Amino acid sequence: MKGNAIVGQSGGPTSVINASLAGVFQACQMRGAEHVYGMLHGIQGLLDRKVCDLSERLSSFLDIELLKRTPSSFLGSCRYKLPAPEEDEAVYEKLFGILKDLNIQWFFYIGGNDSMDTICKLSQYGARIGSPIRFMGVPKTIDNDLMLTDHTPGYGSAAKYIGVVMKEIIRDATVYGTNFVTIVEIMGRNAGWLTAAAALARGEDCEGVDLICLPELPFHTDRFLAKVERMQKERASIVIAVSEGVKLPDGRFVCELSDDHRTVDAFGHINLNGTARYLSNLVAKNLPTRTRPVELSILQRCGAHLSSRTDITEAFQVGGAAAKAAFEGETGKMVALYRISNDPYQCTTKLVDIKDVANLEKKVPTTWINDAKTDMLPEFLAYARPLIQAELTPIYINGLTQHIVEG
Amino acid sequence: MKGNAIVGQSGGPTSVINASLAGVFQACQMRGAEHVYGMLHGIQGLLDRKVCDLSERLSSFLDIELLKRTPSSFLGSCRYKLPAPEEDEAVYEKLFGILKDLNIQWFFYIGGNDSMDTICKLSQYGARIGSPIRFMGVPKTIDNDLMLTDHTPGYGSAAKYIGVVMKEIIRDATVYGTNFVTIVEIMGRNAGWLTAAAALARGEDCEGVDLICLPELPFHTDRFLAKVERMQKERASIVIAVSEGVKLPDGRFVCELSDDHRTVDAFGHINLNGTARYLSNLVAKNLPTRTRPVELSILQRCGAHLSSRTDITEAFQVGGAAAKAAFEGETGKMVALYRISNDPYQCTTKLVDIKDVANLEKKVPTTWINDAKTDMLPEFLAYARPLIQAELTPIYINGLTQHIVEG
Repeated sequence: MKGNAIVGQSGGPTSVINASLAGVFQACQMRGAEHVYGMLHGIQGLLDRKVCDLSERLSSFLDIELLKRTPSSFLGSCRYKLPAPEEDEAVYEKLFGILKDLNIQWFFYIGGNDSMDTICKLSQYGARIGSPIRFMGVPKTIDNDLMLTDHTPGYGSAAKYIGVVMKEIIRDATVYGTNFVTIVEIMGRNAGWLTAAAALARGEDCEGVDLICLPELPFHTDRFLAKVERMQKERASIVIAVSEGVKLPDGRFVCELSDDHRTVDAFGHINLNGTARYLSNLVAKNLPTRTRPVELSILQRCGAHLSSRTDITEAFQVGGAAAKAAFEGETGKMVALYRISNDPYQCTTKLVDIKDVANLEKKVPTTWINDAKTDMLPEFLAYARPLIQAELTPIYINGLTQHIVEG
Repeated sequence: MKGNAIVGQSGGPTSVINASLAGVFQACQMRGAEHVYGMLHGIQGLLDRKVCDLSERLSSFLDIELLKRTPSSFLGSCRYKLPAPEEDEAVYEKLFGILKDLNIQWFFYIGGNDSMDTICKLSQYGARIGSPIRFMGVPKTIDNDLMLTDHTPGYGSAAKYIGVVMKEIIRDATVYGTNFVTIVEIMGRNAGWLTAAAALARGEDCEGVDLICLPELPFHTDRFLAKVERMQKERASIVIAVSEGVKLPDGRFVCELSDDHRTVDAFGHINLNGTARYLSNLVAKNLPTRTRPVELSILQRCGAHLSSRTDITEAFQVGGAAAKAAFEGETGKMVALYRISNDPYQCTTKLVDIKDVANLEKKVPTTWINDAKTDMLPEFLAYARPLIQAELTPIYINGLTQHIVEG
């Protein structure tokens, strides 16, 4: 069986998407792919024939180790949604032409929902035209919102980042012993998996966050203020984890209440943001306390210096499992993580039909939230805690963590 | 020589202020202090007789190791400025009465400018009334703005944090290959030491930040826009490090230009903030690019998981040196760091007169900024690079960094 493999990365960065790239690359090499190509900036770059030969870029064990520790997408990314074949067949003809020129037998795409949609369409079109190319999806997203997989590579490291920094923020916030409300805004527009991870901070050495607000539940500003007021009677420093995506009962995002939420750029893009800032101002105006908004911002997805080794290992594994499946003839599938047990934590991979994954979202079960709607229940902690275990020590050179960069 | 020591922490948190506490505590114990007391919430807590016996809280080597890894102030902090003795002698009479009750011989205060003012006033008052108590200042501030010391404990870890996360942010920002301007807001209202640390990110594996804006130079919004436009013709992703304290030529803070900068809380406190957000909106309105503001916020001062070992070691050393000096009879002094050489880096401690330190600010020499006013010169890198070297591995338990908490 002769031929080449190609792999692309798509969607938003994570700390471990490059570990999946390493997994695909090494498994394809071992299984005898002549070349393993990388698409530069995903399917969009491929359409412009922007590819590299990965074996030229990744030529040593150190390169692979650095790749596992480098956040964001080594190959670059895109947010390109393939049109349906019936809308624009020319795109497919062009893509399959390029793949034929490159003698591609195995095609891998690492990403979230949109990327799985791409794999779904390509595999269906390929089947229709009788293409021999095997198309495999490799899951990736900090948001943990993919269906049919126990969790997604990327989530564990983001959750570990959130747990570690929430503990540090809580220490910082208590220092003066005076009334203080710190509101920390966490990513996840529709699914609250990342915000829920703030619950991991509580332990013998940490009082934990006082209130967790997920987008899975409607947000009532009056009840929120009442809760904060009540809590602050018992404790001066209150730390709140709030999803950027919390919505009012009428469906508007909370951040839409602020005066300046609509930042329109030169392209006319509207960015919704400022939930923590809005709530921080709201509390400051209504209660006798100082407040501070903190946005974890992009560091929660690119803070590779705090990766979970469990996450890195699984990200590598799903890459390898995708290669194994493709070489064994599977196509139109995504590699999913399947949890066997929580304690001891055991997790393996399985294949799921890509069309059952694409374009669907998995949310936090509301049965994992306590009755007072302030905190996560032990069920969530039992689910999330294994995913943040162990570390992959960063490689420090001259005082800073070392990465590998393309080109 | 019998008697007790007392130590307090004051001002804003750092990642290593507790290493100085460990240094004072261990040196006082070794030198024969009967008790080493901690003031809870600094001099303000002491006035309410809120003290603890540190040997009860720190009873093992593991406690000390955890203390070195715990950010913020283990003993709590305050922002209390002692009145001048001629304004309110009663405060001094009360304080010295409490110190006498506790049989204090040695008094240590770990902090920045305001804390050194406290030591200055207490030592002068003590001398006037013939008190035998020795008063010593231990420097601490992420801002690196204390006079007469080569640098301040706390700065190296904050600079390391900034260097590491700027590298991660740069990787994240380049992922789509499209026009993108990321503006990162860094602490330091009057001195640009922390913002300058963004220059450390550049290296073989990182293109570095494209523009650094320090508060030491006036900020011209028109020139800023022109620079960004020019730079973006050569590179799609531009990453800018800007001090929260940049000021217009007329003296107003840049953030005062934004509509919502004045957040007034229930106490009437006004918070200036939003420099990155304002500039990000400004760029988006004027140039054909997407933009994103990122505030490093409090994590740059409490991100103890990224501490510099050089910084932790020096923080511990200045604590120990303060104890040594006090036990040898010195008073009214601060321990300063004195650099012998850059390469190999050698640094020792010396004593400086507290009245030469208190209430003064050290700024970044403008001769360390390039002519184009976009970047730091090698002189700054030679100064800052040694301070971020080496790591103190965090102690991870159950996936998260472990701390020690008071009480």
